[in-house]
Amino acid sequence: MAVAPNLIAAVDEARQWRRLMEMAELGAIPGPTPEDRGVNRPCLSALDRVARRKLIGWATELGLSVATDELGNLFLRHEGSDPGAAPVLTGSHMDSQPNGGRFDGIWGVLAGLEAVQAIREAGITTRHPIEVVAWTNEEGGRFAPGCMGSMAWSGFQPPTAWDSVTDPEGITFRAALDEHLAAEADLPRRPLGAYRPHAYVEAHIEQGPRLESGGLDIGIVTGIQGSRWFTVEIRGKTDHAGTTPLGQRQDAVQDMVRAITALNALMHDPKDVLRFTVGKVEVFPNASNTVADLARFSIDFRHPQAEVLLQRGDAIPGVIQAALRDCTATVTERFHALPVTFQPEVPDAVERAARAQGLGALRLPSGAFHDAQFMVPLCPTGMIFVPCRGGVSHHPSEYSTPEQLAKGTRVLAAALVELAK
Amino acid sequence: MAVAPNLIAAVDEARQWRRLMEMAELGAIPGPTPEDRGVNRPCLSALDRVARRKLIGWATELGLSVATDELGNLFLRHEGSDPGAAPVLTGSHMDSQPNGGRFDGIWGVLAGLEAVQAIREAGITTRHPIEVVAWTNEEGGRFAPGCMGSMAWSGFQPPTAWDSVTDPEGITFRAALDEHLAAEADLPRRPLGAYRPHAYVEAHIEQGPRLESGGLDIGIVTGIQGSRWFTVEIRGKTDHAGTTPLGQRQDAVQDMVRAITALNALMHDPKDVLRFTVGKVEVFPNASNTVADLARFSIDFRHPQAEVLLQRGDAIPGVIQAALRDCTATVTERFHALPVTFQPEVPDAVERAARAQGLGALRLPSGAFHDAQFMVPLCPTGMIFVPCRGGVSHHPSEYSTPEQLAKGTRVLAAALVELAK
Repeated sequence: MAVAPNLIAAVDEARQWRRLMEMAELGAIPGPTPEDRGVNRPCLSALDRVARRKLIGWATELGLSVATDELGNLFLRHEGSDPGAAPVLTGSHMDSQPNGGRFDGIWGVLAGLEAVQAIREAGITTRHPIEVVAWTNEEGGRFAPGCMGSMAWSGFQPPTAWDSVTDPEGITFRAALDEHLAAEADLPRRPLGAYRPHAYVEAHIEQGPRLESGGLDIGIVTGIQGSRWFTVEIRGKTDHAGTTPLGQRQDAVQDMVRAITALNALMHDPKDVLRFTVGKVEVFPNASNTVADLARFSIDFRHPQAEVLLQRGDAIPGVIQAALRDCTATVTERFHALPVTFQPEVPDAVERAARAQGLGALRLPSGAFHDAQFMVPLCPTGMIFVPCRGGVSHHPSEYSTPEQLAKGTRVLAAALVELAK
Repeated sequence: MAVAPNLIAAVDEARQWRRLMEMAELGAIPGPTPEDRGVNRPCLSALDRVARRKLIGWATELGLSVATDELGNLFLRHEGSDPGAAPVLTGSHMDSQPNGGRFDGIWGVLAGLEAVQAIREAGITTRHPIEVVAWTNEEGGRFAPGCMGSMAWSGFQPPTAWDSVTDPEGITFRAALDEHLAAEADLPRRPLGAYRPHAYVEAHIEQGPRLESGGLDIGIVTGIQGSRWFTVEIRGKTDHAGTTPLGQRQDAVQDMVRAITALNALMHDPKDVLRFTVGKVEVFPNASNTVADLARFSIDFRHPQAEVLLQRGDAIPGVIQAALRDCTATVTERFHALPVTFQPEVPDAVERAARAQGLGALRLPSGAFHDAQFMVPLCPTGMIFVPCRGGVSHHPSEYSTPEQLAKGTRVLAAALVELAK
């Protein structure tokens, strides 16, 4: 594959970085160094709308047309020579984690904009239109779960599925969405899933250490591993820490420790492919001189193979029950997504674009969730990863260099031209 | 020892219960049954002052004189035949845990009042005065640590030691105390530690299951076990739960589980005398899909033998360090109180009073802290325990029957007469 040199030259590293940094001011979290500033920009918030208006401004200046839908997904359209052809879709999301970084999501949207701008400036015409999308609520940081916009657009879930989900302040997703749609009533509205895309390609930071540690530029994403999320509640009995003999206690903290220890054994994987995380722990009444009567913890379990995900995930409740000594437990599954494997079309196009530009590229699966996984049933789908420092994301210290991001956008631009040709 | 039958008859079970229930209305927490109503009455609060005015009303009606001191400790004085003799002191505290019960502390104060009232109504004269005390802030629920009033009165700590301690709303102990003293400026003020008591005896619910399970009426407290409190902070590195291989993580939750498991082994005690509790756990950022970079937990370690307290307590930091796999830990000791053993005078008097009334009594140490432990250097000291349902305290379901409490007050009254004779 030959990539037009004027396309590569038209991707403007400084312009893309400037736009990213402008976006990063909206919800900025101060950091110890300029590279450790973070972002807190919840979906469907006033800040989110300021960011969207900024994006819309850049898009309309460029001559793209703008539309939204009943979930607030935002589309920026570059026409092809055949306006009736199915669009090639690219993009990501603009919301952040509550204590998040400046690149996760928003770079995928701005990379789409930069790629389209470069295609236009290079005078390249494609048959298929190219649309840049910003999906609503990918992170799930304000309203859980994430990926609501892409799940509704792809038909994976009905658009009203999350009406009663509340944010930490008790505001429902429905109320926030209605307020948001009213504030954007001036934008043209499309039906959900208005078309079946010709292809979908999403650019994103890796959120893992493999590209950086391998000294590579581009990750050619082969699929997204499956996830199962559980909440475990262990119920015991509160007692005075100074008086109650240990043999007479029902100590929820101690049985939580036993349960997590047993789960570590269940989840043991010498190949270190399996991901098992207890990231959230809550204890009640949480007083140093009182035996806890309730301990609640989260399980985030991921694996690229459906069989492992099913077998070990299904074993979780039994392993916990067997580990308890004095308390009772309830195990509730909150989310279950099987692994997806991308069809070869898009990964192959990404690989050709990277090789043609002499970039170091690696095929790898995505450990994190992405909106891309809900596009898989609709069209050839893929993702482009760029390295991020230390593999860190979901934190203010998340960082990629302007150059790393520009390389990713050049690969995206070339892949879009091939897919939309 | 013979106990005057009219003294026993003068202890009025119904009157004592009525006063307890009136006090329980001040800060009442609703419960599923009348026996499971709780109390939240923080020290030095407006509610606390209403409770104190109620107590002062009952005392002055009875002819007792009232005084306070610069820590807000409250004294109700019944004269003896020799006003110059050192008073026998009895009492406890009126503050509660935030989600506390109706008996812890307040019963010891009202039992003192009821005992003095019975002594007066029975026409018994003692040589020594008897004073009923309500110590300030025993629980440490609003301002930590507890026992401030008795620590300052006994000279264990200077009265300004806690000036800068803040409550959860950021109010300093000094500010709360100044406000409180201004509101009680009409009360006579005494110096701290105005006298060395002739003896100190404190009535309290057991806060443990031994009396109830043994079908006994009275606990003759032999001493108070020692306590050491620690805070452990485990610091790791935050990472994405879906992407970071387990072998590359510094997961603070996992190292906390390892540390607690190792501490359980250190604290193993086949005799089940040792008390080891992890009651408070905090994890950051505490998100289900993020590897935690900080886990903080409390250690409450108690034992009646100083040697065990010192040896195993000093071993805690090393055991934690050895248990860590990927993180670093800091261990901070927050409190260290050696065990106290009561001199025989008061326990013997309590035992004689119980036996003379045909009550079932057991000598036992106190697992919980009490103001009594700070009286030990000053005078013969002891405590009287009564059973509480299920051994539960520091919870709205804390409960003792009117009869159990009256039996305890009858023993207190007889012991006070003997000690003050």
